[in-house]
Amino acid sequence: MKYLRIGQPGLETPVALADGKYYDLSGPIGDIDGEFLERGGIATTAGFPEIDIAGQRIAPPIAKPAAIVCIGMNYAAHCAESGAEPPAEPVVFYKHPNTIVGPQDEVQIPRKSTRTDWEVELGVVLGKRASYLESEEAALDCIAGFVVANDLSEREFQIERSGGQFSKGKACPTFTPLGPYLVTPDEIDDVQALRMWSKVNGEIRQDSNSKDMIFSVARIIHHMSQFMAFDAGDLLLTGTPEGVALSGRFPYLKAGDVVSVGIEGLGHTENPTVQA
Amino acid sequence: MKYLRIGQPGLETPVALADGKYYDLSGPIGDIDGEFLERGGIATTAGFPEIDIAGQRIAPPIAKPAAIVCIGMNYAAHCAESGAEPPAEPVVFYKHPNTIVGPQDEVQIPRKSTRTDWEVELGVVLGKRASYLESEEAALDCIAGFVVANDLSEREFQIERSGGQFSKGKACPTFTPLGPYLVTPDEIDDVQALRMWSKVNGEIRQDSNSKDMIFSVARIIHHMSQFMAFDAGDLLLTGTPEGVALSGRFPYLKAGDVVSVGIEGLGHTENPTVQA
Repeated sequence: MKYLRIGQPGLETPVALADGKYYDLSGPIGDIDGEFLERGGIATTAGFPEIDIAGQRIAPPIAKPAAIVCIGMNYAAHCAESGAEPPAEPVVFYKHPNTIVGPQDEVQIPRKSTRTDWEVELGVVLGKRASYLESEEAALDCIAGFVVANDLSEREFQIERSGGQFSKGKACPTFTPLGPYLVTPDEIDDVQALRMWSKVNGEIRQDSNSKDMIFSVARIIHHMSQFMAFDAGDLLLTGTPEGVALSGRFPYLKAGDVVSVGIEGLGHTENPTVQA
Repeated sequence: MKYLRIGQPGLETPVALADGKYYDLSGPIGDIDGEFLERGGIATTAGFPEIDIAGQRIAPPIAKPAAIVCIGMNYAAHCAESGAEPPAEPVVFYKHPNTIVGPQDEVQIPRKSTRTDWEVELGVVLGKRASYLESEEAALDCIAGFVVANDLSEREFQIERSGGQFSKGKACPTFTPLGPYLVTPDEIDDVQALRMWSKVNGEIRQDSNSKDMIFSVARIIHHMSQFMAFDAGDLLLTGTPEGVALSGRFPYLKAGDVVSVGIEGLGHTENPTVQA
């Protein structure tokens, strides 16, 4: 199943996409949130009316999560281009959940920014509370679905303005485009073998694969559950591969650019940028 | 005005405390959350029934915020005891909002923890969205109230297990006791002149004053609003003074200890600790 949300901010309609048709889920299910996902979502679209989404805003595919938990430095080649050693254990930081926007919404270049950068990431949405999990198998059982995310980052703010704590450059308004879909695990053959890419104005930037993660999705959730509790609905971002502007190989984003990220099977974003 | 919440998790009743009497706010106001605070709270307790809170759980005084934004290294003497230089600008990290517990709830010593530490902090709850504020005066106008917080920290997880990113040692379950009250700004003469302390089993640990902050509350909010947007209801923790176990002067917490933090005019917490 693919879930999405359609409509203006605060007025989104939950929708399911199956066999190329869109179904209106509004009513008893509420929203695409932790409560809905913890109940297991819907098993079938039978009984839900078809809906025409043409011309409407595609919203973020999940309601605002309680937290965005991010893993940094999870691809060896990205560590190298960032001037860092690969970590021995998952490195974690958070983004404010109010940074989430839809897959075609405007992204703001922050005021006084000169180094706004893109990061394609495999997003994982939790379907149940996960605390002190006993195995990586148990971790996989906590996953409600996958979503493509752009973990936008202002590199000066991230690296030079906060004593090395990343979050200052990660939580600027509009810095987490998501979507278009939340895709349930049954639709993904192997989450550790998905091609992932980013583009700026149609030119390829990152072109990699989730098989290159240092710590797999299952390992991250199992490991992090020893240090925190995930709630149903939480969004986990699993790190970005090489090919960001920080490498020096590409210019940073400027207002007027269009930045896209995509992952095989999960669709892609395409966000125009504007000056904040 | 002082706001608090009474009752078991998920079933809290919002309460106002004025002139030594408690008033039941349940009904139209909903909860002590961003929406309520953005409306300006209540001007008077007239019309609300008195309530007897004896024997009931004192809950965290605010509903779960969208984010807990934390400032690190904001007292020079704490920087010194932590082996760090005072920062040139506010250092920011986040805690998962699901870490919040009430002022007398159990705090869990995480599994495999040997270095669980306390941190008394002045908490600030935002009453409106704050983005690209133009002045420190505008920042003060965004404050809905103040609350005492214990920013519990597992030092090995924080410093040695996450490439230096603090959040791994900050978001263990129950690691943010709050309360007992949210105190509106009119009740605080000078937020930069409040005595603040922590105790373990009744013995003093930290004993300091908010006048020793490197960056004032107004400066933090103004500064951070250039890098992020605060939402109404967000909780900002403003750093801790010297006197934590990380200094080497005191033992770390162990199951069975009682850890307390207090701030002049804001009350205090008193949390028993248990093994997770």
